Amino acid sequence: MKLTILGCYSATPRTLNNTTSQVLEINNHMFLIDCGEGTQVQLRKHKIKFNRIKHIFISHLHGDHFFGLVGLISTFRLLTRETDLHIYGPKGIKEIVTLQMKFADSWTNYNLYFHELTSKKSELIFEDEKVEIYTIPLNHRIYTNGFLFKEKEGLRKLNVNAAEDANINMAYYRKLTQGFDVENEDGITIKNETVTKSGLKPKSYAFCSDTMYKEDIIPIIKNTDVLYHESTFLEQHAHLALKTKHSTAKEAARIAKQANVDTLILGHYSTRYGSIEAFKDEAKVVFDKVELAEDGKTFEF
Amino acid sequence: MKLTILGCYSATPRTLNNTTSQVLEINNHMFLIDCGEGTQVQLRKHKIKFNRIKHIFISHLHGDHFFGLVGLISTFRLLTRETDLHIYGPKGIKEIVTLQMKFADSWTNYNLYFHELTSKKSELIFEDEKVEIYTIPLNHRIYTNGFLFKEKEGLRKLNVNAAEDANINMAYYRKLTQGFDVENEDGITIKNETVTKSGLKPKSYAFCSDTMYKEDIIPIIKNTDVLYHESTFLEQHAHLALKTKHSTAKEAARIAKQANVDTLILGHYSTRYGSIEAFKDEAKVVFDKVELAEDGKTFEF
Repeated sequence: MKLTILGCYSATPRTLNNTTSQVLEINNHMFLIDCGEGTQVQLRKHKIKFNRIKHIFISHLHGDHFFGLVGLISTFRLLTRETDLHIYGPKGIKEIVTLQMKFADSWTNYNLYFHELTSKKSELIFEDEKVEIYTIPLNHRIYTNGFLFKEKEGLRKLNVNAAEDANINMAYYRKLTQGFDVENEDGITIKNETVTKSGLKPKSYAFCSDTMYKEDIIPIIKNTDVLYHESTFLEQHAHLALKTKHSTAKEAARIAKQANVDTLILGHYSTRYGSIEAFKDEAKVVFDKVELAEDGKTFEF
Repeated sequence: MKLTILGCYSATPRTLNNTTSQVLEINNHMFLIDCGEGTQVQLRKHKIKFNRIKHIFISHLHGDHFFGLVGLISTFRLLTRETDLHIYGPKGIKEIVTLQMKFADSWTNYNLYFHELTSKKSELIFEDEKVEIYTIPLNHRIYTNGFLFKEKEGLRKLNVNAAEDANINMAYYRKLTQGFDVENEDGITIKNETVTKSGLKPKSYAFCSDTMYKEDIIPIIKNTDVLYHESTFLEQHAHLALKTKHSTAKEAARIAKQANVDTLILGHYSTRYGSIEAFKDEAKVVFDKVELAEDGKTFEF
């Protein structure tokens, strides 16, 4: 699981600060999460192949999270993309994109699917053999979702010696890795756990931005490996966090602690602070394993 | 008159190439012409004060000419702008911008005026004491206008000695600089030309992008000081220029020559060519005074 931060600052793109966008590589997928203005240039800078992006997740319709989307869709067209593209985001996103296509008289030559979200409850929005993606309803000024990316339980590891000793036909080995009990050559049922052990621990990543402190999300993100939680402000501006429905670094850490995640990544910083180290210092008082998102930084888990 | 090129490449923003946007400083105005994605970052890079921009002119609704507009309008709001902002552009631009404001629930706290264009004839769209701006109807795949920026004739230069000799009361000196004949102290009419001479030659700038070769624009831009004319292709790709309704460098030069402009600036280059020098070489065969637009370059006239 590899996370590349393309932008992690709030409000407006600046010469050295990009607005929210990140790429999550998980199980051969390349998921783009949010798409602030300039995201396509950031993708080029970090040599991420456009064609590998097949799913884009937009948290909410504030500009710093999606103003780069229509440009990216348009660039895909100019590069004669043929691969399907799926967009997941709040209701309205389809109208915004297609209105601009209409006036430009430029329609995509690839299939473009919109999956508009309206539910205020966590829901499964993507699933394949290996990965599930759920929304995480957040509390911001407008309708907003975070996203939880979860690997499914992988295949169990077969102890071949034990399986041979138990006199199991090789034809059943695949069923064993899938977790089933099987009958051996003598017609006796062999319990799966006696000849296999669990495979690689499935990884999970939760993206939560933008949101005010909201304990309701804790059951959804419980025990997640990595949590990206916005921390627009420091505690000294807790009144602004409350007013604008954002979080402080300390609040992000409190969520991380209660959800028992392994690692907390902070981001969506206001540019009012000289250095971002202060965010880490503040969060560390509450929760130990804190990382700072920075434009261009990658995390591997 | 000072022109700053913020971006001059066609199609899509890249790591080192920005899409169309430029700032024209003329008579204390700061006019923004087109606004591709990333324009606000380019404005910051070139230290152009956001508040000085009061008028934005959008040629047409292809993304590489306006995808940065909604972000700029939104950033102006975040920076608590109070100055009025006027947007001139094709019909549809208001709907595109306001739809995104609606879904973001973010309305400007400054006055935002849209001046939507639909005419296929050149029309006066802005005028004050010193400057006039006209549309230049172009021929592209969708409805497109170029823009002609013209200083008005300035005040005439008074020859004070001659005025004294002609026995003209000082109270009439301002009328003289405005070009009027006046009566002297003896009741005799004094012809303006005998005591004044013409002031500074008024400057003019024509922006023509995107367009195929179109001789109809020549009367509108006749004798303009500076013409920016798109040259997306070289002659070797004239068939593509025709197909996509763009121009070659040679065609831009032919327009410049027939319109008897002083200087031609080329831009809106396709990125398929290794170097942009070839555009200049091609144009120079037809027209001598050719300059190449480059991102970040400024021209003073």
